[in-house]
Amino acid sequence: MSCEAGGFCADEHRRRVAALQRGMTADGIDALLLTTPPDVFYVCGFLTRFWESPARPWFLLVPATGDPVAVIPAIGAPLMRRGWIADVRTWDAPDPRDDGVGLLAAALREMLPPRGRLGAPMGAETHLRMPQADLARLLALIAPATLVDATGALRGAREIKSEAEIARIRAACRVADAAFAGVGDFAGSGRRLDDVFRDFQIALLREGADWVGYLAGGAGPDGCEDVISPADGRELRRGDVLMLDAGAVKAGYFCDFDRNFAIGGPSDAARRAHAALHAATDAALSAARPGMRACDLHGVMARALQAQGAAPLGGRFGHGLGVSLTEWPSLSPLDETPLRAGMVLTLEPGVEVAPGRIMVHEENVALRKDGPELLSARAPAELPALD
Amino acid sequence: MSCEAGGFCADEHRRRVAALQRGMTADGIDALLLTTPPDVFYVCGFLTRFWESPARPWFLLVPATGDPVAVIPAIGAPLMRRGWIADVRTWDAPDPRDDGVGLLAAALREMLPPRGRLGAPMGAETHLRMPQADLARLLALIAPATLVDATGALRGAREIKSEAEIARIRAACRVADAAFAGVGDFAGSGRRLDDVFRDFQIALLREGADWVGYLAGGAGPDGCEDVISPADGRELRRGDVLMLDAGAVKAGYFCDFDRNFAIGGPSDAARRAHAALHAATDAALSAARPGMRACDLHGVMARALQAQGAAPLGGRFGHGLGVSLTEWPSLSPLDETPLRAGMVLTLEPGVEVAPGRIMVHEENVALRKDGPELLSARAPAELPALD
Repeated sequence: MSCEAGGFCADEHRRRVAALQRGMTADGIDALLLTTPPDVFYVCGFLTRFWESPARPWFLLVPATGDPVAVIPAIGAPLMRRGWIADVRTWDAPDPRDDGVGLLAAALREMLPPRGRLGAPMGAETHLRMPQADLARLLALIAPATLVDATGALRGAREIKSEAEIARIRAACRVADAAFAGVGDFAGSGRRLDDVFRDFQIALLREGADWVGYLAGGAGPDGCEDVISPADGRELRRGDVLMLDAGAVKAGYFCDFDRNFAIGGPSDAARRAHAALHAATDAALSAARPGMRACDLHGVMARALQAQGAAPLGGRFGHGLGVSLTEWPSLSPLDETPLRAGMVLTLEPGVEVAPGRIMVHEENVALRKDGPELLSARAPAELPALD
Repeated sequence: MSCEAGGFCADEHRRRVAALQRGMTADGIDALLLTTPPDVFYVCGFLTRFWESPARPWFLLVPATGDPVAVIPAIGAPLMRRGWIADVRTWDAPDPRDDGVGLLAAALREMLPPRGRLGAPMGAETHLRMPQADLARLLALIAPATLVDATGALRGAREIKSEAEIARIRAACRVADAAFAGVGDFAGSGRRLDDVFRDFQIALLREGADWVGYLAGGAGPDGCEDVISPADGRELRRGDVLMLDAGAVKAGYFCDFDRNFAIGGPSDAARRAHAALHAATDAALSAARPGMRACDLHGVMARALQAQGAAPLGGRFGHGLGVSLTEWPSLSPLDETPLRAGMVLTLEPGVEVAPGRIMVHEENVALRKDGPELLSARAPAELPALD
């Protein structure tokens, strides 16, 4: 990845590494081990869909000072070497005798003091993408160095987006804006939900998505039963509310927002639910400022819904967004993370329209010093109707 | 998921659980913890793209006898309850105080004897999709029960596909067959590679893919530089060989095969490379039998390439396929897994056409008692040319 080919310049990545290293220093971490697609992409600009194969682990090491070291399967070497990381070490994976663990331990011994602290993300919303048995083997090889939680350093860096990152998320949002504008061309009474899902993915690709990393939604009388099910062959009927939730990917960055459509004229209940959600999002757009906590912004939306007489859903009303479809923080009553300028967030209030029927409304924003900048085109105040 | 809605019947899933439990008994495992999308789908039929969000862990427990227990975020309850799993326990995730660990430990205490053995996949091609700190907390809560590797029990079951599973993989292959047949409509000299990738994804959706879980490929003089890079804006030129590698998903099952296209008339080198790959695949199609080892089938293809004067690539020449894009075993010199009837495999020999230029050829097969059944439509013997 070069600047010219749509990649970021090395400067951008060096700033990210510096941010990680500040957090590592604060937490006394001597080296950071990253293993997941978003984390490796974030540091290296290494973008591939090959992660879909669980066969091979990939390792990225960030030392407390100096440049990262990539310890990766040989199949990834040409792509990694086109990026800014100079130290790329490879093995022929998969290797049942030693799938990179020895090579990784050798690289770590160069970075870690004898009783050093190897950080890895171990907290909320993280996992280690490597076999658990190999992790145990690695820790035995680097002992007496120990494994410590580096979620704080990772979050601290990834939560704040650069202008280059915000531009990519905005580009992904524009793809979805354009695709949503054309939903009336293929969705309506009598159309099968699975065909609508397929056509919507085609629309996202036509509007410039590199791929469609996520699509969810549903349809039912006045709202969906849930928002994570795959589409089935049920036909849309008048009285349904159709919801489509798009995670289009553009140059490695996601958008994540939904739109609702009434099939035929909406019922009063659906119209009121949509109006309440729109008002709650307006309230969040007015109120959000750096220094608030994530739970405070949840409270703004929950109170706005209640003021409209709507029944707020449990759970969170939004989250971070960027190299993953969802990132820290959670706009939930339990998340006290301070909001900071540079965060990109979804505002996603939800209501129960009737027992077992829900409606969710979502926008994507970049939080600026003086409030949120919309990255998605603001949804219409009135629930739009399709024939 | 019901039989009618495109799901599997409960009987299918009960047979899978029985296969897992046979492996667990053989390895002395009292309960099995599964956390990843393919494993949870395999046991429950729980199909969603919501896994794209790393925010929430999901837990599925298989006891040594009896039915599984799902311990999942409340947001997944309606979908899980439409399936065959009766015991579904939920919490409001994400919860920074306890993200399901207490609930999971309580469920495990019902299943595990005091010094029982909790199995989890810890070996090759696995990872645990949960925070590492939560795993440590879980193990403290269930002590003196201990964590042991259950990769063998999981592989043993998942490697052998039922006829219902083979039918789904075949359906995914047919989608890709049809899309590959139309590549000439949008790929050719002067077309940008990223537009070709986009159009190919659209073609896969039009032919009935539920979504496109994977797409890789590349183009260059006589072959690609690598096979995992994303597409860039480079225009195809006469003399290039274009490779497209499709992971279309149909009802939760993947296909995974590629096709090569010469832009303009192919060079002698490209023609020879393709012919050697085709001959190597023919050799594998003739020779593959249950009882051979994975490495033996690799050897069949490597020797056929050498007999054609071609230079085999390192690494593996194929792998398992099903609920993941790639599964065990690996057709590599190091993998001694015995091949068994019911395995679905990719045959994927690769050659170096010139220094830094490679060509890979791939078919998908179900291994039967008397040899492989092609699931993909056999590639043409001659490298096809596009204008």
